Amino acid sequence: MAGMKTVGLIGLGIMGRPMAGHLLRAGYGLTVFNRTAGRTAEIEAAGARVAASPAEVAAVADVILIVVTDSADVEQVVEGPRGLLSGIRSGSVVIDLSTISPATERRLDGLLRERGACLLDAPVSGGDVGARNATLAIMVGGDPRALEGVRPILECLGKSITHCGDVGSGQLTKLCNQILVGVTLLGVSEALLFAKRSGLDPEVMIRAVEPGAAGSWQLSNLGPRILKGDFAPGFMVDLMQKDLRLIQETAAASGAPLPATALVRQLFLAAQAHGEGRLGTQILGRVVERLAGPDGR
Amino acid sequence: MAGMKTVGLIGLGIMGRPMAGHLLRAGYGLTVFNRTAGRTAEIEAAGARVAASPAEVAAVADVILIVVTDSADVEQVVEGPRGLLSGIRSGSVVIDLSTISPATERRLDGLLRERGACLLDAPVSGGDVGARNATLAIMVGGDPRALEGVRPILECLGKSITHCGDVGSGQLTKLCNQILVGVTLLGVSEALLFAKRSGLDPEVMIRAVEPGAAGSWQLSNLGPRILKGDFAPGFMVDLMQKDLRLIQETAAASGAPLPATALVRQLFLAAQAHGEGRLGTQILGRVVERLAGPDGR
Repeated sequence: MAGMKTVGLIGLGIMGRPMAGHLLRAGYGLTVFNRTAGRTAEIEAAGARVAASPAEVAAVADVILIVVTDSADVEQVVEGPRGLLSGIRSGSVVIDLSTISPATERRLDGLLRERGACLLDAPVSGGDVGARNATLAIMVGGDPRALEGVRPILECLGKSITHCGDVGSGQLTKLCNQILVGVTLLGVSEALLFAKRSGLDPEVMIRAVEPGAAGSWQLSNLGPRILKGDFAPGFMVDLMQKDLRLIQETAAASGAPLPATALVRQLFLAAQAHGEGRLGTQILGRVVERLAGPDGR
Repeated sequence: MAGMKTVGLIGLGIMGRPMAGHLLRAGYGLTVFNRTAGRTAEIEAAGARVAASPAEVAAVADVILIVVTDSADVEQVVEGPRGLLSGIRSGSVVIDLSTISPATERRLDGLLRERGACLLDAPVSGGDVGARNATLAIMVGGDPRALEGVRPILECLGKSITHCGDVGSGQLTKLCNQILVGVTLLGVSEALLFAKRSGLDPEVMIRAVEPGAAGSWQLSNLGPRILKGDFAPGFMVDLMQKDLRLIQETAAASGAPLPATALVRQLFLAAQAHGEGRLGTQILGRVVERLAGPDGR
């Protein structure tokens, strides 16, 4: 294992935990930190070192992965008390796999560069299933040479790794991903409601149209879950709502009106108003059905 | 060729013409009719008989395909002067491949049944390319035994033939198809606008997200055409608008509110208002870009 980079991982939630497993199995020396201490036991038993702070991770790792939830969480990890900045070594690469504001990534990259380190923003698509099976799509912004240096590490986590441009471009691409995911899912929800109210068998409808121009990942994967009433998260409404807020802030700043995306956001607000924020995004199918009320035919 | 059915085909437009070719190559005896007489010469040279009216087609064919544009056109073919009804033989099967109102199909089926014939509504998805390559998805409503009798004929035209339910179910399934196509394309249009205004390379964005949960036929096939400014029809805005009108009429009658589909319809109206009704549906990408106006960055 001579010459293999030492890896740090901060955040052992639903996404971070399976990633830690993949890195250990690939033979990387791994140091982890999690805000809630209880979650580290299993990873420690599998061979990881547990650090007491992000600064402690930064002191030993060449490459540091961050897998947390929101911009404020990443800021806390990087520039909070005992954050990465207070321990980072020159030449280290920080890879933020969280989905957060592109502007925040650019600011944090600036702070890291003052210490001779740098940041790649690398949000992922594919959910918990993709994290477990290492089939994530990873969208990377930042220095392309830094990406080439850490590519073998990212290849332990995902099947498609695309360089999208400067720091922040990964996040911007992820926001495009969320526009597509949200609006396509709304189309699926409306088609299923239309099918049911028209007396069609909606499963037969999906089978009939999915091989053609109507086909999408959302239709084939979430359509059947909507029909079964299976609303367990894949990807939670509360997190989608966070991404939709980022999209609208970014789009407002760049002058891009997005009417369907705005509608999707309103309908996810309706799900949250019904206490469904911790369910999967496919709850949109139920939101649309509620618009219609009981079927009086 | 003993025992092979004699086939009639009414409508030699962009969809009907290649279908006639496939049927002749498969060895079927074919009689055609087209409202505009000039279009028949090529098909006649290839071995088809040309009839002077739909009634004349009905008098010689066991199976009659209709491939025209709108409900009124199909009504004209079936119950107009010298229409199918005045020549139809008992036991004949009429297959309407046009996309028209489900209620009209049910009414025409009733009229045909009074003569011992019946109707299958069998709208298709896949556009002119699908018609030329015989890769259409065909969504069929009506008597399942009648479908089994004509399945070899439909297999000359498409790669997926799905029985969706009673007469009218093919049309209802096609309308679901159009909800999905329209709303997904609007998502693609908004994602591309967002990408451009954010300074991303939109082609790289498509490549980064299409393998994941954001993937769709519309993204992979129409996204690159929008970026190239290639607005040649695949499927024309004017025809899509016709389908969206049918969707909203049917949904209003069954009590299904479809907010995103309604939005799509308004934006296609904007394309028509700009004189773009005869361009392909991917013009929606330009409509959304016009919402944003010139890029002032």
